Amino acid sequence: MAGTIFVINPNSTEAVTAGIDQAVEPLRSVDGPKIACLTLTEGPAGIQSQRDADSVVGPLLKRAAGLENEAAAFVVACFSDPGMHALREQSRHPVLGIAESGVFQALTLGQRFGVIAILPSSIQRHLRYFGAMGVMGRFAGDLSIGMGVTELSNAEKTLERMTATGKTLRDTHHADVIVMGCAGMARFRRPLEEALGVPVVEPTQAAAAMAVGRVRLAAA
Amino acid sequence: MAGTIFVINPNSTEAVTAGIDQAVEPLRSVDGPKIACLTLTEGPAGIQSQRDADSVVGPLLKRAAGLENEAAAFVVACFSDPGMHALREQSRHPVLGIAESGVFQALTLGQRFGVIAILPSSIQRHLRYFGAMGVMGRFAGDLSIGMGVTELSNAEKTLERMTATGKTLRDTHHADVIVMGCAGMARFRRPLEEALGVPVVEPTQAAAAMAVGRVRLAAA
Amino acid sequence: MAGTIFVINPNSTEAVTAGIDQAVEPLRSVDGPKIACLTLTEGPAGIQSQRDADSVVGPLLKRAAGLENEAAAFVVACFSDPGMHALREQSRHPVLGIAESGVFQALTLGQRFGVIAILPSSIQRHLRYFGAMGVMGRFAGDLSIGMGVTELSNAEKTLERMTATGKTLRDTHHADVIVMGCAGMARFRRPLEEALGVPVVEPTQAAAAMAVGRVRLAAA
Amino acid sequence: MAGTIFVINPNSTEAVTAGIDQAVEPLRSVDGPKIACLTLTEGPAGIQSQRDADSVVGPLLKRAAGLENEAAAFVVACFSDPGMHALREQSRHPVLGIAESGVFQALTLGQRFGVIAILPSSIQRHLRYFGAMGVMGRFAGDLSIGMGVTELSNAEKTLERMTATGKTLRDTHHADVIVMGCAGMARFRRPLEEALGVPVVEPTQAAAAMAVGRVRLAAA
Amino acid sequence: MAGTIFVINPNSTEAVTAGIDQAVEPLRSVDGPKIACLTLTEGPAGIQSQRDADSVVGPLLKRAAGLENEAAAFVVACFSDPGMHALREQSRHPVLGIAESGVFQALTLGQRFGVIAILPSSIQRHLRYFGAMGVMGRFAGDLSIGMGVTELSNAEKTLERMTATGKTLRDTHHADVIVMGCAGMARFRRPLEEALGVPVVEPTQAAAAMAVGRVRLAAA
Amino acid sequence: MAGTIFVINPNSTEAVTAGIDQAVEPLRSVDGPKIACLTLTEGPAGIQSQRDADSVVGPLLKRAAGLENEAAAFVVACFSDPGMHALREQSRHPVLGIAESGVFQALTLGQRFGVIAILPSSIQRHLRYFGAMGVMGRFAGDLSIGMGVTELSNAEKTLERMTATGKTLRDTHHADVIVMGCAGMARFRRPLEEALGVPVVEPTQAAAAMAVGRVRLAAA
Repeated sequence: MAGTIFVINPNSTEAVTAGIDQAVEPLRSVDGPKIACLTLTEGPAGIQSQRDADSVVGPLLKRAAGLENEAAAFVVACFSDPGMHALREQSRHPVLGIAESGVFQALTLGQRFGVIAILPSSIQRHLRYFGAMGVMGRFAGDLSIGMGVTELSNAEKTLERMTATGKTLRDTHHADVIVMGCAGMARFRRPLEEALGVPVVEPTQAAAAMAVGRVRLAAA
Repeated sequence: MAGTIFVINPNSTEAVTAGIDQAVEPLRSVDGPKIACLTLTEGPAGIQSQRDADSVVGPLLKRAAGLENEAAAFVVACFSDPGMHALREQSRHPVLGIAESGVFQALTLGQRFGVIAILPSSIQRHLRYFGAMGVMGRFAGDLSIGMGVTELSNAEKTLERMTATGKTLRDTHHADVIVMGCAGMARFRRPLEEALGVPVVEPTQAAAAMAVGRVRLAAA
Repeated sequence: MAGTIFVINPNSTEAVTAGIDQAVEPLRSVDGPKIACLTLTEGPAGIQSQRDADSVVGPLLKRAAGLENEAAAFVVACFSDPGMHALREQSRHPVLGIAESGVFQALTLGQRFGVIAILPSSIQRHLRYFGAMGVMGRFAGDLSIGMGVTELSNAEKTLERMTATGKTLRDTHHADVIVMGCAGMARFRRPLEEALGVPVVEPTQAAAAMAVGRVRLAAA
Repeated sequence: MAGTIFVINPNSTEAVTAGIDQAVEPLRSVDGPKIACLTLTEGPAGIQSQRDADSVVGPLLKRAAGLENEAAAFVVACFSDPGMHALREQSRHPVLGIAESGVFQALTLGQRFGVIAILPSSIQRHLRYFGAMGVMGRFAGDLSIGMGVTELSNAEKTLERMTATGKTLRDTHHADVIVMGCAGMARFRRPLEEALGVPVVEPTQAAAAMAVGRVRLAAA
Repeated sequence: MAGTIFVINPNSTEAVTAGIDQAVEPLRSVDGPKIACLTLTEGPAGIQSQRDADSVVGPLLKRAAGLENEAAAFVVACFSDPGMHALREQSRHPVLGIAESGVFQALTLGQRFGVIAILPSSIQRHLRYFGAMGVMGRFAGDLSIGMGVTELSNAEKTLERMTATGKTLRDTHHADVIVMGCAGMARFRRPLEEALGVPVVEPTQAAAAMAVGRVRLAAA
Repeated sequence: MAGTIFVINPNSTEAVTAGIDQAVEPLRSVDGPKIACLTLTEGPAGIQSQRDADSVVGPLLKRAAGLENEAAAFVVACFSDPGMHALREQSRHPVLGIAESGVFQALTLGQRFGVIAILPSSIQRHLRYFGAMGVMGRFAGDLSIGMGVTELSNAEKTLERMTATGKTLRDTHHADVIVMGCAGMARFRRPLEEALGVPVVEPTQAAAAMAVGRVRLAAA
């Protein structure tokens, strides 16, 4: 199948891109679209603020424009989906965002979704976005693990914090499905799900799976 | 990949199942899960009422139970998603419904979704379901083409009516994405989209694509 | 007044029907419609899952069809209102469901309603239904007492658990009116209300009262 | 049964009270609560503005206070439910309002309710109230017949206008149940329902029926 | 600039009016509209119930009518905005209410607003109003400090209680902006904001600021 | 009063900035904050797409950073409020956006707001934003006048189209207050209001008025 799904990590941290690449591996098939994961080198180390989110739109659009001819679809792999709507205007291909896809997948797995955010400063931004998506009627809560992007290299601590946060979402906020509010952490999905006993959505996988489907169907 | 995605048409009309089978063909890959489309022979010729929808749940659960060991996932291929929640309780595999998946896909393609229903008697049922899904804040309208299930064999007339209904949804109800509120009509998707100039979602394709993604990821 | 209001308990537990019968006694008047409470013998001992809810629709519709000529109205006496919409299609008489009527009565008694469920597995189902009813904007919470249907024969423990759950709904979820999320427990309504200090709605009474009104007005 | 349900027409037009009295007649039973319909002589001829609505609260509370010992329940019989919440604070008896009860009854009869208002100036007030009730997710439309309160004595013209307005609500706004947005017009309910082919709720009947149920259950 | 903005305290407590007068002082400019703060001597000492709120509408309208010719705008300075909609009907000038203006200002400062109420009995009334305003999707919580209107003279205790309540709104209800649900307490705004670390809105200031803008623009 | 309110037009069209400057003139007072209107020379001629909106955030933040020390507040004067949330993170001063302020002011003037957009391509973007604001429950409609930004120099045609669009919003969508969905057109506000007979909000004025209030109160 011609064309590549470009999953663009809009932050410049290669380790995140590597995590994404691993996350989408099961979605690659011999006769399906290729899936390539890219790092937006112009991006900040992590997207922590609205400013960060807005700042990557220009470079992301430019990068995507250069890939347009090779592309079958684009995935914006940051939980704020920066540039997703602008890229939909620019590209003739399907464009998915991981927050959007992750939340919608969650809504097929539970009735009230909770989100595990990395930073407290992201929560207002997430809520504005969920409002724009029209899903606040099924929102349980969005809580941060309170760790900086750099601390996330400590895997054990990260999982521990995600688990504790997930338990609060489940027990206090009555979430019956959890969305990981960040990219590049697919390796924690399964242990988290086991610890919490409710479904956990890794949003990059959700978006990439949607993209594969869209590409296959468009090609038909 | 072991396991089959069973797409179950809960009505007994084989032509609908054949249409579904054709619709999901692009989603089959050599190394992916098989996709088998089945007709629920115990179902009515078409699901036209709440009674019809409720009546197929028992047979559908029974049929799915018999397939559980072979199954990788199930798709309920009727726009009322009858039995979907009960099947989620019963099966250890992913279970998708075409209305749920179709609407969520639509919400990644436009801001206000419109639905083309076959029968006027389905609209209240759809609205209750959209309310349960929590998406009424993005609902534009749900209009019927006013043709009986049997009349649908007239393809030309069906497409003509769907086009007219879609134009009303677009122009009067301000829908910027349309969901086909029925299964087995994938062949009309592209001409409808061309006639309307806004994206049109075929919900069986949306659900089957989601199912493929879920199966691939679960197998990893 | 000709015609009987048939209150159908869709589970097969006669004790529940007896509790319902006692609950609606004050609504019987010498010149009003008769009220008869029936047990759906084909039903499960208790409706604990979506599967259970869906499974009773067929038998319930059949039973109601046999009663159509004698009937003045029907009440579906299970908090999931199984078959209510299908019965509305089938019957020319008023059809009320206890969850629908109970919640609407609650909304005339407080601003945010809480629901005491029996089983945790019912809560998602309730929430889907409240969403379909469009009342999530006034929803405070839905918490289970965590007792099996069989344990409910222990009246003291049941009331104790309902009281504790009601207090959590009142104090943590800010419910100012409580709906009992089950049928057949009218005897606990008053002690619960006294213990909680906020109005408590017994939903079978709410639905049967609505049915009496509808029948009297239709007969005029 | 001791105690009287006082249905208070907060405007001073006796003809409206007479219409209400006739409307609730079928709800009177030999062993049930008495139902007395009163005119608030201090009220304006019709409640046409927010000022009118607010102005009747004081006299209504005073009148109700004088009736408290005889009362079993109160019904505020004006579609703005003026004083209903204050009267709930004041009285130890059930207090129903016709708009609240009428809308909730409508929501058991259709999925999207339409309201036929008398005056255009009432519509904003109604919408604020429906917002407070949390039912805007099921609102289809609220349209006025554009006749002054005094013109309403012309029954033929009134019914004609109500029918035309109801048809617009049904066909353009997709209402599948209609609420009459005024008291004292029960005589038009049946012809309107026949002309429209969808259920029509007379709100005074809805509220009085609820009141009867509440009184019977409280007395038990 | 001709015309005066009349800020009417609808309760009869002069100390409250004095607090309001001090609160709006920074909004007075040499070339802008005068701002006069009045006490409605007919009002109760404090507005604690729906009855209290309704009772002041008549006197407030009368007072405002007498001021109409001198007025440039009116502000209703009680957090229930009693009479605001009726006064909008009566006056040709802008009419603002402090709850409405305070909540809207809050929504420009945070994503989820919390309200500090004085009395628990006000909370249901507030919620009905927020529902009418259509802002429940951004509502975090409304909690009372549990002090009588007379106790409020104890400034230290009042601030202490407001701070504790604000912390609960922030930490448990996830409010990121707080509205003071009462008039006349502007002196606590800054210490409260410092103690809580999130923006705090004094609603009389919000409304008076809006009024000044409206008057200046209308005069142009 | 020290400090200047900087109203930043994020498009590069000086005529728009001139229109804004004229619009806010009545809000300038001798003892109040200065109001300076600036053109973002790096911006496009008009903001017509999400891409345009996103593209101005960087330059706008940079420009505002340079003004931070002189500034008392910022107003983002484009109906998409581009960069508003990022600027709130960056600046210690109040930051208002014209869409947000305009809509909230509208909600104090009517129950259902309509928006007159310039281009059809802006409507989806507006709707996402109104969803994020949580005000869709009071949304009537958003219709475009269908003129390019350059055509807007034809004042007569522009007003004619705005009037026709406003009438549709009023009569078909039941808007009772209209927001002008663009900056720089304050000169049309009054004739539009006269032609429509419902309040019309010019959003730059609404935002600048709010900013003046915030600055005065912060300075106190």
